[in-house]
Amino acid sequence: MPELSYDAYREDVVGRANVSDTPELIDYYRRLGRLGTGALWTVANKIEPWQPRSSSVPMIWRFQDLRQDVLRALDLVTPEQAGRRVVYLENKGRSDVVAAVGWLYAGLQVMKPGECASSHRHSASALRFIMEGSGAFTNVDGHKMTLGANDFVLTPNGTWHEHGVAEDGTVCIWQDGLDIPLMNALDANFYEVHPELQQAVAHPVDDSLAMWAGSGLRPAGQHWAKRYSPLLKYEWAPTYEALSRYARVSDGSPFDGLIMDYVNPATGGPVMPTIGATMQMLRPGERTKAHRQTGSFVYQCAKGRGWSVINGQRFDWRERDIFVVPSWMYHEHANASATEDACLFSFHDLPVMHALGLYREEALGENGGHQPVLS
Amino acid sequence: MPELSYDAYREDVVGRANVSDTPELIDYYRRLGRLGTGALWTVANKIEPWQPRSSSVPMIWRFQDLRQDVLRALDLVTPEQAGRRVVYLENKGRSDVVAAVGWLYAGLQVMKPGECASSHRHSASALRFIMEGSGAFTNVDGHKMTLGANDFVLTPNGTWHEHGVAEDGTVCIWQDGLDIPLMNALDANFYEVHPELQQAVAHPVDDSLAMWAGSGLRPAGQHWAKRYSPLLKYEWAPTYEALSRYARVSDGSPFDGLIMDYVNPATGGPVMPTIGATMQMLRPGERTKAHRQTGSFVYQCAKGRGWSVINGQRFDWRERDIFVVPSWMYHEHANASATEDACLFSFHDLPVMHALGLYREEALGENGGHQPVLS
Amino acid sequence: MPELSYDAYREDVVGRANVSDTPELIDYYRRLGRLGTGALWTVANKIEPWQPRSSSVPMIWRFQDLRQDVLRALDLVTPEQAGRRVVYLENKGRSDVVAAVGWLYAGLQVMKPGECASSHRHSASALRFIMEGSGAFTNVDGHKMTLGANDFVLTPNGTWHEHGVAEDGTVCIWQDGLDIPLMNALDANFYEVHPELQQAVAHPVDDSLAMWAGSGLRPAGQHWAKRYSPLLKYEWAPTYEALSRYARVSDGSPFDGLIMDYVNPATGGPVMPTIGATMQMLRPGERTKAHRQTGSFVYQCAKGRGWSVINGQRFDWRERDIFVVPSWMYHEHANASATEDACLFSFHDLPVMHALGLYREEALGENGGHQPVLS
Amino acid sequence: MPELSYDAYREDVVGRANVSDTPELIDYYRRLGRLGTGALWTVANKIEPWQPRSSSVPMIWRFQDLRQDVLRALDLVTPEQAGRRVVYLENKGRSDVVAAVGWLYAGLQVMKPGECASSHRHSASALRFIMEGSGAFTNVDGHKMTLGANDFVLTPNGTWHEHGVAEDGTVCIWQDGLDIPLMNALDANFYEVHPELQQAVAHPVDDSLAMWAGSGLRPAGQHWAKRYSPLLKYEWAPTYEALSRYARVSDGSPFDGLIMDYVNPATGGPVMPTIGATMQMLRPGERTKAHRQTGSFVYQCAKGRGWSVINGQRFDWRERDIFVVPSWMYHEHANASATEDACLFSFHDLPVMHALGLYREEALGENGGHQPVLS
Ligand SMILES: [Fe+2]
Ligand SMILES: [Fe+2]
Ligand SMILES: [Fe+2]
Ligand SMILES: [Fe+2]
Ligand SMILES: [Fe+2]
Ligand SMILES: [Fe+2]
Ligand SMILES: [Fe+2]
Ligand SMILES: [Fe+2]
Repeated sequence: MPELSYDAYREDVVGRANVSDTPELIDYYRRLGRLGTGALWTVANKIEPWQPRSSSVPMIWRFQDLRQDVLRALDLVTPEQAGRRVVYLENKGRSDVVAAVGWLYAGLQVMKPGECASSHRHSASALRFIMEGSGAFTNVDGHKMTLGANDFVLTPNGTWHEHGVAEDGTVCIWQDGLDIPLMNALDANFYEVHPELQQAVAHPVDDSLAMWAGSGLRPAGQHWAKRYSPLLKYEWAPTYEALSRYARVSDGSPFDGLIMDYVNPATGGPVMPTIGATMQMLRPGERTKAHRQTGSFVYQCAKGRGWSVINGQRFDWRERDIFVVPSWMYHEHANASATEDACLFSFHDLPVMHALGLYREEALGENGGHQPVLS
Repeated sequence: MPELSYDAYREDVVGRANVSDTPELIDYYRRLGRLGTGALWTVANKIEPWQPRSSSVPMIWRFQDLRQDVLRALDLVTPEQAGRRVVYLENKGRSDVVAAVGWLYAGLQVMKPGECASSHRHSASALRFIMEGSGAFTNVDGHKMTLGANDFVLTPNGTWHEHGVAEDGTVCIWQDGLDIPLMNALDANFYEVHPELQQAVAHPVDDSLAMWAGSGLRPAGQHWAKRYSPLLKYEWAPTYEALSRYARVSDGSPFDGLIMDYVNPATGGPVMPTIGATMQMLRPGERTKAHRQTGSFVYQCAKGRGWSVINGQRFDWRERDIFVVPSWMYHEHANASATEDACLFSFHDLPVMHALGLYREEALGENGGHQPVLS
Repeated sequence: MPELSYDAYREDVVGRANVSDTPELIDYYRRLGRLGTGALWTVANKIEPWQPRSSSVPMIWRFQDLRQDVLRALDLVTPEQAGRRVVYLENKGRSDVVAAVGWLYAGLQVMKPGECASSHRHSASALRFIMEGSGAFTNVDGHKMTLGANDFVLTPNGTWHEHGVAEDGTVCIWQDGLDIPLMNALDANFYEVHPELQQAVAHPVDDSLAMWAGSGLRPAGQHWAKRYSPLLKYEWAPTYEALSRYARVSDGSPFDGLIMDYVNPATGGPVMPTIGATMQMLRPGERTKAHRQTGSFVYQCAKGRGWSVINGQRFDWRERDIFVVPSWMYHEHANASATEDACLFSFHDLPVMHALGLYREEALGENGGHQPVLS
Repeated sequence: MPELSYDAYREDVVGRANVSDTPELIDYYRRLGRLGTGALWTVANKIEPWQPRSSSVPMIWRFQDLRQDVLRALDLVTPEQAGRRVVYLENKGRSDVVAAVGWLYAGLQVMKPGECASSHRHSASALRFIMEGSGAFTNVDGHKMTLGANDFVLTPNGTWHEHGVAEDGTVCIWQDGLDIPLMNALDANFYEVHPELQQAVAHPVDDSLAMWAGSGLRPAGQHWAKRYSPLLKYEWAPTYEALSRYARVSDGSPFDGLIMDYVNPATGGPVMPTIGATMQMLRPGERTKAHRQTGSFVYQCAKGRGWSVINGQRFDWRERDIFVVPSWMYHEHANASATEDACLFSFHDLPVMHALGLYREEALGENGGHQPVLS
């Protein structure tokens, strides 16, 4: 069916397209359409907006609303049937690509003691952030790592990996973060099941930390050429300690409080080429100012409670709640407690923005740097 | 309206999701949907395909089919109304994002002598490849360049630029190539009109070539920190000469004949961070073998005639025809002449693939490396 | 006085110079000499040896031999007169350039409580390794750091710096390591006294550790563009702990046991562009095999006792002893204790070798990898 | 023999060493000497000068003075005896290391038609700049290149290479440039004779130019990971043309006129990791201002005539004359002709300075930027 109107995106601004439909033009547009073409001026203002207009919307998923349904998956499907028992988070504006925000996927995975998923690898870069339970482990290319609450672990692009929970553990829930949608968007998504379904543990447990977690130290003569962090696991205790130490000497960022990036110790760069991760601390009573960035963010509250204002909308969060900030939307954070600090974990696509030269950042100048809260 | 079926993507393969709908599960899925979530196993096999499945299709646009309609834009709209008189190429599978293939935009622009578009800049990286006419010029950040047929010129991300045709020139047609769709997809697209609509010519005409076109020579002490090529323009004569010289000492690639990348002389890297460009020569009678790559390509025949087989489909082309190869589709090329060489210009997103660590390439092993031609 | 013989370096090997002196040639050589020239074949074999022949010799300086004379400097000279009270280590083969080995300078500095050297900066990169005493501190560009035994601190090329001992401290001795000889050799040595003789403490004490010592974590948005480590100080306790952890998962290197490089956490690279530093642990009873490298090393025993065989010569060492390994000389290490580990600190010029593409390494193949001990 | 005086380097400046000899101190110094040590304050001001004090001196070698003696080597020695018939240039201040300036070696090599040196390789990076004769060629790792006057060719660190003159050529003289002295200084000099004395020509003659000399073009899919330029040869005609084009759009540098670096087209960086090379053009009548740099330079006049003032000393030069500028000495250049341009080729160690973070540059501020000519 031919379109009825071609001039919906007109702008009366010098240098912008501003052509009204006429019968002659509509004929022309239809003929162009039949040739597999179109007239740029009918869509130019739409495809060249003045600034980014994300189709993602700010959203929050509260853990108390989801927890029971996540646990219910244990009874409803077996790992053999389901592959993985995961409830994914679906952004209202991105349901076609199964994304939580932008091109980032997020889900809550649940597993029983004694279970272990089958080993596989894929183009998507992946991470897990442990939410509850004991005994969880991950095996990445033969490096087995044990995991506790607020631990952060990588399963990078191209690595064989599998997750499980020890026999003597408890039911575990963790957040999965991946860039599956980006890999599909870029027509670059490959998937492979491990020929033996389970890979061997080829190194001492947690050996990657023993080798790469030294502060300002690395094994001599180990040339690390891969594009992800050899550290693989970042534990909560030293992360919280690092933030606490940082808090003693710095005010941090006016927009994000005490904020530290998880990095590749072999390069100082991001943990994976397409996904970065960050932990930030808001001091008791701290309230930050608004800024916006090119880049999409999935946050999880790791500690405490507070709220964020995103694009004029307030979202209250507490431990384990997950919320998202779409690209180029103003956001600011507040710690709701006057006595306890609050910590936010996030993962994001800033490494993509930097790799392609697209990173921009802007502070909100008006109103003392705070957004009016519209809802 | 709730979905009726959730098990459309089942695969009976170990390690893949294989859950049949039951009334109880459908209830569960609907409740998850109301929470802004879903069950991963209902979509896992869809979003994690075994290998890339591009939504783009191979297509060709023949210049003889389009030329009259492109010229007709001269009469139908003024530059003031239209901004630019451009007929864009629309891939059947990508009309929602106005792309010729993948996230790449391509269009044919036409301009009369004495016209000059208004100056602007944007996040999208852009290029032009001159198809016909004399007197065309581009001004990039004050560097004015004159342009003839088969010349290739950059208007990189963030540079002020404008195109025009000299008073004593003729009607000019050129191909525009941009990554507007990618910039929109990444929520990173900014657009600005120059405050004075026209920028000054701030340097001697074609000065970028005088400084940067030396073979293995660069101005000493000129630190070039921008992420695009300071050369800006690549003329046809030295390009063809370089290919001819290359042909005398090498067989080139079995898949692409004599193939050379346009590069940034200050780094040896791609001309822009998100778009690369290439010129290749097929010797008289040469027929290449099939391979596939992660990456999308827009080709234009710059010289000669021949055909390409893309994903089993044959496309015959001659000078000025434009065709596209979607990501991970086999393609092979043939020169139809036994006496003349044929040259293909292309631009592509390989720099994105490399920057993000996603480049892969595979030769077709069967059938002597040639695809069966299905259509 | 003209030379009497010009054929001292003859070699009877095809491709090498092998010209005997004749009266006619000697006349020719003398005339060339008067023109500010010479005949290459008279010196070719000398200046193009088959492999490196360092003019440095392996040496050890035992702390018990030096300690009294180092302390004596306290009485003999004031800091005002001497600048710094330092006893430098002089390699027998390098006395002309005041080097301990190769182009590396090493000295033992002593300071009393309440003293503080005047602030200055220089092209030479410098480091200190604390040997004894309490209350030592260093101020680098306003970052004050407190120092204890076996702590390692940088004072990089171009930074204002000064050392002192707190009023309530004790007499302190530390090892200075610098590349003063290299800076002179490269005709690139600049020196400046601080206009105010003492610089202010501009940051919280030990703030560089609070910001950069996190394991796999760095302050977000802190772009570190300088070519040295922002961490500046590497404390002994976490260093020893990192080695101990490493020992639990790895056998380390056959040549160097458990060996870790001190690195720049912002890049993963060496601590300074011209000097690298390393700490290695030999397990109880461990004895390594011999290898040789292009690069010069100054070792200090930080813990335990043992011996090293360097170029066939055995050197027994215990805590605080300093010894050197010249470039391309075989060396191997042994821990003399069957129950305690031994630790060796070293600094070296491997970053220079890597930066210039000159690094080579070779294992000793014969005799089970062990050198015959000649002395 | 013990030294008689230890206080020769005293400076009466706060922050500098200023200790007078006393009998007690002299005793102390002698005891330190016996321990393989010394007191830093006796040498501190010497080894930490306020700014670089090169031991090299500015010098010129005029071709007319040397040419006959260079040619005479043809009669005096055979290539078999001498290896290579080369007259090297010896800086008065650097005769101990056989350097023309700093750590750079330069020599004039002569060869007869039909001769070819034996193939070898070494750690030193090398280059040739052709001075006269026809038929010269170089073979680098199987890439044979033909050479004419003012052509510049590389024989990088680690490449097998050999030079010769074709049977139908004439006697050839070229300038050799190497960093043999630096390789020895760094204890990193290896030398090897080719097992077969002559290597095969493994590629079409001059294939490196056919592949890499394209202006802003490079063979696609050729990953060049070596640290030197794959172009290998830089011919005079396109070099002169590039300078002439540059002259039409730029005033060039106030210190060096139109100056272009020879670069590695695969990276935009220097031709070799330890030696850079440059060609500069002085316009008719041009006279530049003085500056100084950390770095040593060997110049050869490739065209025209003029003079340079180096450290206050005037050196007049014409085609084929060679002169040197030591590190951190002011230098300025003048073209003596009012009608012809003059061109200076130079090679230098700036890549070393940059790799190690030691590059500095300073313009002469006084006297309109011109040095008083002292001699
Ligand atoms: Fe996975
Ligand atoms: Fe933020
Ligand atoms: Fe544009
Ligand atoms: Fe191809
Ligand atoms: Fe110092
Ligand atoms: Fe070693
Ligand atoms: Fe050589
Ligand atoms: Fe200069």
